Amino acid sequence: MKSRFRGAIAAAALLLAGTAHADALIDNVDGIALNDKGEVVHFNGLLIGKDGRVVKLLSRKDKRPETLDWRNDLHGAVLIPGMIDAHGHVMDLGFRELSLDLSDTNSLEEAKAKIAAFAAANPDRPWILGGGWNQEKWGLGRFPTAQDLAGISDRPIWLSRADGHAGWANDVAMKAADVTAKTKAPAGGRIEKGADGAPSGVFVDAATQLIDTVVPKPNPRDYDAAFIRAQQKLLSDGITATADMGTTLDDWMTYRRAGDRGDLRVRIMSYARGPEVAATIAGPGPTPWLYDDRLKVVGIKLYADGALGSRGALLKAPYSDAPDQKGLQLLSQDQLLNLMSRGAMDRFQIAVHAIGDAANREVLDAIGELSETYKGDRRWRIEHAQIVDPADLPLFEKHGIVASMQPVHAISDMHMAEARLGEDRLQGAYAWRWMVDHDVPLAFGSDYPVEDPDPFIGWAAAFTRQDADSMPFGGWHPEQAVTREQAWAAFTQGAAYAGFAEKEFGTLAPGRMADFLVVDRDPLLASPTELRALKVLETWVGGRLVWQRK
Amino acid sequence: MKSRFRGAIAAAALLLAGTAHADALIDNVDGIALNDKGEVVHFNGLLIGKDGRVVKLLSRKDKRPETLDWRNDLHGAVLIPGMIDAHGHVMDLGFRELSLDLSDTNSLEEAKAKIAAFAAANPDRPWILGGGWNQEKWGLGRFPTAQDLAGISDRPIWLSRADGHAGWANDVAMKAADVTAKTKAPAGGRIEKGADGAPSGVFVDAATQLIDTVVPKPNPRDYDAAFIRAQQKLLSDGITATADMGTTLDDWMTYRRAGDRGDLRVRIMSYARGPEVAATIAGPGPTPWLYDDRLKVVGIKLYADGALGSRGALLKAPYSDAPDQKGLQLLSQDQLLNLMSRGAMDRFQIAVHAIGDAANREVLDAIGELSETYKGDRRWRIEHAQIVDPADLPLFEKHGIVASMQPVHAISDMHMAEARLGEDRLQGAYAWRWMVDHDVPLAFGSDYPVEDPDPFIGWAAAFTRQDADSMPFGGWHPEQAVTREQAWAAFTQGAAYAGFAEKEFGTLAPGRMADFLVVDRDPLLASPTELRALKVLETWVGGRLVWQRK
Repeated sequence: MKSRFRGAIAAAALLLAGTAHADALIDNVDGIALNDKGEVVHFNGLLIGKDGRVVKLLSRKDKRPETLDWRNDLHGAVLIPGMIDAHGHVMDLGFRELSLDLSDTNSLEEAKAKIAAFAAANPDRPWILGGGWNQEKWGLGRFPTAQDLAGISDRPIWLSRADGHAGWANDVAMKAADVTAKTKAPAGGRIEKGADGAPSGVFVDAATQLIDTVVPKPNPRDYDAAFIRAQQKLLSDGITATADMGTTLDDWMTYRRAGDRGDLRVRIMSYARGPEVAATIAGPGPTPWLYDDRLKVVGIKLYADGALGSRGALLKAPYSDAPDQKGLQLLSQDQLLNLMSRGAMDRFQIAVHAIGDAANREVLDAIGELSETYKGDRRWRIEHAQIVDPADLPLFEKHGIVASMQPVHAISDMHMAEARLGEDRLQGAYAWRWMVDHDVPLAFGSDYPVEDPDPFIGWAAAFTRQDADSMPFGGWHPEQAVTREQAWAAFTQGAAYAGFAEKEFGTLAPGRMADFLVVDRDPLLASPTELRALKVLETWVGGRLVWQRK
Repeated sequence: MKSRFRGAIAAAALLLAGTAHADALIDNVDGIALNDKGEVVHFNGLLIGKDGRVVKLLSRKDKRPETLDWRNDLHGAVLIPGMIDAHGHVMDLGFRELSLDLSDTNSLEEAKAKIAAFAAANPDRPWILGGGWNQEKWGLGRFPTAQDLAGISDRPIWLSRADGHAGWANDVAMKAADVTAKTKAPAGGRIEKGADGAPSGVFVDAATQLIDTVVPKPNPRDYDAAFIRAQQKLLSDGITATADMGTTLDDWMTYRRAGDRGDLRVRIMSYARGPEVAATIAGPGPTPWLYDDRLKVVGIKLYADGALGSRGALLKAPYSDAPDQKGLQLLSQDQLLNLMSRGAMDRFQIAVHAIGDAANREVLDAIGELSETYKGDRRWRIEHAQIVDPADLPLFEKHGIVASMQPVHAISDMHMAEARLGEDRLQGAYAWRWMVDHDVPLAFGSDYPVEDPDPFIGWAAAFTRQDADSMPFGGWHPEQAVTREQAWAAFTQGAAYAGFAEKEFGTLAPGRMADFLVVDRDPLLASPTELRALKVLETWVGGRLVWQRK
């Protein structure tokens, strides 16, 4: 194994330093990919051109070219196409990676030690920001207090609870926010008080805004640092391309700076946060592919409703566990049509978040109406398409809509979804199999950082409908599981198709970008548990090694 | 001559179509340039490398390379380095090119006729927008009024003054902006009033915002169209590189779209409109050179005062023709220091507009203070440096400040400047010669679209201090004229130095970008009148033909 890695490192040094791509051969691999029909193909060598694209997949018997700029012998390692996430939030992931994570702490003392270590390791940060604490898990029997944080740092500390519904501040943060015993909690919020009537340090729901408003906005350096962390995380998980759902102006400028510096490695299909942002960052229509097919504004992200957990998903009938609620309609049908139309007029692709069955129906109706005006290959996208009335499912097929779905959500949500919806409404929920069976283009993603970006966890969830503990037995609504190969396609060529990128990348075939992974096991032979534990050893984008496990 | 052009066209077709630059020879030219010492050098051939840079200047006797990708025989035509404008406004020029231009009108009546014709020719434009009027030139003896525009159109009319420091509105525009007798001018602005106390139609400096805010914003397509017009105008005038003073976010995105499309030809040294815009468009510091040295955020543009014509220039003593006025201080000394410091901290170059002697002193003092903190090669710039107290001039020398000046302003302003300032204060006015004699880096520009971007008009003004009619006899304050060669240097290598670009372009010498012009006469032998009438025949940027006279 050692010699193989040395070879790869030498090749990488050459590539990272070189100005031009070379004719290259990755040889002696256990290569597995899907062809454009979704059939499994095996290969033994991968020939890459100077442009970073695949020239040819070679079988063991094929003759190797006589002159090559470089050659890399992988000694039989497994090589697969790069994975693609059809729905993620790049900068949110980056900022999450940069902040303090207390979700693995099991006591207040452990948390305090971790906060102190983070403060020491980050002396230049004006605020200590993070989250993930849970006093229940600590067995504390009370909320933590500002007093608990005393002496850890002379900088403000502000840490959100694991559920995001409360925040924990130290005295410095409360002073910065001018919070005193006289401060009143805003509507929908609560300030925890000590025995003396003074704020104890924990702020609940809307009261968290009192502190949030004084937290300094991240500056361009923070954005740059967060992006590099996000990119590192994605590449280490085997993601070579990702949709970025809801790109802001600051996000976009960060990606461009990375591109201008030559630091952009992962491919980003960007969906701007609304038509205004799209006009600002892309101009009168989608951008061309920039930086050798690494960055493009493809479309516009819109929101029709909220999420299921917080009962924001818009339902046709009331929530089973809250009969007075039907969710949040974030846009009227007119507003939705207007925004979609403004984007479509400029040929931006439209991707609309819709979780509840009523929201999905609204978006389906809007697409039906707009399809009469905006013809051609539009690939309208519904993001999540989580709860769909079975009667409405055929509208996906009718309008050639891309279903952009997240397998891990089903696994994370199953118990909660049953409570919110009742058994009857689960027929059209997370209905991946229906989509595949009716030729609806299916694209898989993770919705990171809401879920872990690791695509192999999602892949396993997609064909098992089981969680990491292989529960429930036989899978949750297994009739909507897809096959292993169908799931793989949705995480590669399906996700590329969803972003109008299938001619550039999404599988390994002549003319496509040489985006691939060297992994520690065969994902088609691995058990679901083994697949979830798959390790990416090397990540290559455009024929260049961009990440390697140490 | 015919065959020469055919050769050039063939070469151009090859270059515009080709993907890579070629080793090329531009031969049989009457080549003239300045070396880095400012001395005139003559050459007969120009050898250009694949990277678009000059390999060598060849004399008639030098051997020509045997293998060349292409060769262009210019049959003895005059070839000079591309001209550089150290202070212009690219998008303003573009929108000016798209809008009504009143700069050639010689009376109010003529202007009214032109406005009416433009309104009739552009029935779809919701507003009649334009500029270039100058009541001094019309001999009107007063500002024009809304009443003067009555009956021309039922659409709003809004026309900026030639210097950009005032605007002229009709009643419809004032109504759209809700401007009444009760409206107060914002700080740094003035609303001209009639005898009845009602707004007369002219808004000065910051008061122009009152109308500007209700003018419909141009969309990205408008920006793209305007940019292409601006670029065409600059290249046709022989400008191969320009500073863009006060780049906005929308401006920047337009330049990037042009670069991304491969349509960016002229080189732009961008100065962002303030530190916030700089952070947004460039991030934590100046960008690298983008698109083969065609675009870069170099620094930040700030304003210390207004302009002389509208009595916005901040003077130490009252205006000679308005003893109750001393001009407008747009930033307090603390604000100025704070903004300059914020930019300098991130290593942005600082360029501050200062016209009046008091404003220049303020900026000079600020630079003196900041120089103690921000060391190294900072090249603080003062834009215009128009009226400087002779006692303050040595501060330019002391701090190595770049004097960024516009020769044509002196010619346009001379009568007005005498009225505003009186004869005594003209000693340190437009003091180009003083700068050169004291080794102050001098950069020339036009302040287009305030003035015509044609650099040959500016060049002639710089060594004659005479207008297009060769008036006044002997020149206006000829003691501040520079030599023909000094003026040329300020319009080429001086302007490049001012933008930290002298290693990339600014003259023709090995390693510099092959930015050059084929012109119809020798600018060193031409009379001033002939120089003003010089015609650019071809404009080349980076060894590629980018504009050609038809």
